[in-house]
Amino acid sequence: MAAELVSLEKLLEKHIPAGELREVWRLLYGKDISPLDLPSSAFQAASIRGFELQGYGFEAAVEQTRRPRIVRVGLIQNKIQLPTSAPVTEQISSLHKHISDIVEVAAMCGVNIVCFQEAWTMPFAFCTREKLPWTEFAESAEDGITTKFCQELAKKHNMVIVSPILERDSVHGDTLWNTAVIISNTGAVMGKTRKNHIPRVGDFNESSYYMEGNTGHRVFQTAFGRIAVNICYGRHHPLNWLMYSVNGAEIIFNPSATIGELSESLWPIEARNAAIANHCFTCSINRVGTEHFKNEFTSGDGKKAHHDFGHFYGSSYVSAPDGSRSPGLSRVSDGLLVAEMDLNLCRQTSDKWNFKMTGRYEMYADELTKATQMDFKPNIVQE
Amino acid sequence: MAAELVSLEKLLEKHIPAGELREVWRLLYGKDISPLDLPSSAFQAASIRGFELQGYGFEAAVEQTRRPRIVRVGLIQNKIQLPTSAPVTEQISSLHKHISDIVEVAAMCGVNIVCFQEAWTMPFAFCTREKLPWTEFAESAEDGITTKFCQELAKKHNMVIVSPILERDSVHGDTLWNTAVIISNTGAVMGKTRKNHIPRVGDFNESSYYMEGNTGHRVFQTAFGRIAVNICYGRHHPLNWLMYSVNGAEIIFNPSATIGELSESLWPIEARNAAIANHCFTCSINRVGTEHFKNEFTSGDGKKAHHDFGHFYGSSYVSAPDGSRSPGLSRVSDGLLVAEMDLNLCRQTSDKWNFKMTGRYEMYADELTKATQMDFKPNIVQE
Repeated sequence: MAAELVSLEKLLEKHIPAGELREVWRLLYGKDISPLDLPSSAFQAASIRGFELQGYGFEAAVEQTRRPRIVRVGLIQNKIQLPTSAPVTEQISSLHKHISDIVEVAAMCGVNIVCFQEAWTMPFAFCTREKLPWTEFAESAEDGITTKFCQELAKKHNMVIVSPILERDSVHGDTLWNTAVIISNTGAVMGKTRKNHIPRVGDFNESSYYMEGNTGHRVFQTAFGRIAVNICYGRHHPLNWLMYSVNGAEIIFNPSATIGELSESLWPIEARNAAIANHCFTCSINRVGTEHFKNEFTSGDGKKAHHDFGHFYGSSYVSAPDGSRSPGLSRVSDGLLVAEMDLNLCRQTSDKWNFKMTGRYEMYADELTKATQMDFKPNIVQE
Repeated sequence: MAAELVSLEKLLEKHIPAGELREVWRLLYGKDISPLDLPSSAFQAASIRGFELQGYGFEAAVEQTRRPRIVRVGLIQNKIQLPTSAPVTEQISSLHKHISDIVEVAAMCGVNIVCFQEAWTMPFAFCTREKLPWTEFAESAEDGITTKFCQELAKKHNMVIVSPILERDSVHGDTLWNTAVIISNTGAVMGKTRKNHIPRVGDFNESSYYMEGNTGHRVFQTAFGRIAVNICYGRHHPLNWLMYSVNGAEIIFNPSATIGELSESLWPIEARNAAIANHCFTCSINRVGTEHFKNEFTSGDGKKAHHDFGHFYGSSYVSAPDGSRSPGLSRVSDGLLVAEMDLNLCRQTSDKWNFKMTGRYEMYADELTKATQMDFKPNIVQE
């Protein structure tokens, strides 16, 4: 098997002369965004700890009546740290330790809000369809060990933390959920928000583990801006992004776990389209690496049973409301992407393009209501 | 001023070695699509007539109970043919002649459905905010000279024609609309569909000329498949694409007129996202060239008055439900893009990814209805 490409960006930079490269980035990534001037100590620490660090800044115009609202956001993508056969608690601890190391570097970079990848405390074991030991990774969103861990981290670094976990809801019949816990920079748990759309595609057998979320489209007013979380498969649903935006989100995180074969050419499109369509920032985070499981499983594709899900291609990136985007993190290694954004760009872009004002939502609410009726007759014109 | 780049694809092909280029296309454009084997006589005719011809095929898996449903679609992008100061009727005739020449080549390529660019019988004069002579380009959708011209063309070539024009609706108070007329391959007018979202951005002063369309989200059952038309600015509205798809569209055309500065980095994202999100084909057509107007106008951007709207960058392309896309036509010259598609790919992709099944439209219809109420309270969680 050929070695995985590190990144599209590095490949293009290798071959295309500087003069023309600028036009390539304009066409592919939009308005020029500048690298952030991050402390060299942070780059050193990242290098020693074995993960990539990249930083970019998104600017907005100066206004007369609002001050710039600058926020630094951190996106973390990482491999699991122990074999999937290690004891559950050891796997969790090893990930806590690893993330703690990366968040420390994020703090050195002045990050205000950090988001981890989907189900970050565990391997993405839903491909196996086995229940034990994987369901043992589930924990309470309010007072599980991971939430407690994040609360300490948040207080220590004065940082908002978005922590996507497998949630055990013992109050409601011991059900499982795919949930993001939002922890304030004060260390308080602000609340939780659940994955609204559950995949039935490829080895994403998540519907065997948990159901569609029941927390609607909450937005969290943090000290640094209004944020929301569209977990993984929800990025394929434009209405999901829309409703977070309609409720006021300025930054929508999309913690994900997705693999090359299936989705890689879709990855740069969907979250970026959501940033454009909703005049907001979107932060796409994907798991990285290949995870091996002890028992073999099949994938409903006629192929032989196997022990892994495929390659999680990382490539985490940030999209801005004006359609520009950052380069992606590596396709093969752990990384921290720091993005500085002036949130004033959201309303500035909205005033320029007016997608909400011209959105005709009454018409769509009405048409969508009719379309869900059993006796819906599609509007088809025959000759 | 530097010469305009011909296309991103040509630039990448010039610099990137073949071995690595394949991976670049996989990441940027998705599954490999193959060039169509078009007759050399068609390439010759295109070359003599001075426009670019490209062709690609999108395949689907073989099914047991449905035969392949192969259709060839043609996308035409073109410059205006006479100066904008020429008499209105001469400008129209020159465009009729030019399009007739290109459609003839489309017929040689076996095209079944062809779509022209937005307001194809005229310069895109809405930047001027002048009424005369531009409103004189408006004509009846049912029996205007352009519709009659298209009817002849459709019969002659056994081709469905999507003809986007400026419509004069004399039955309803002489109002103007931005309308696409759908002409059956039999030559009959199947009906019309109007632009649902009108821009208020940059020099797109279209709201000075016409209003939001009142024809909803009609889909036309042609002999070759179910088609719909999302005109220009409607591509920024994910709900617009969605409702055409919910009504059964397998191919959604997006005839447009858009310029570099404003939208070029958005262009490859939005229609492709719509193809992915809605399990359908989308066909993006953009005008090409720069159009000059006699009287100067300003653009609300503090810059000096000027005589042109900017460079329409062409780059017409086709996106498939599986997220793959064709290369774009030239950024600088007229062109015909022929795409052969097996429409069975739509339902196959839907069965694989299930975005409609997992779409939870009842929830969104409800949330959207509430969001449009005057007393709507956004769902914001405070600490």
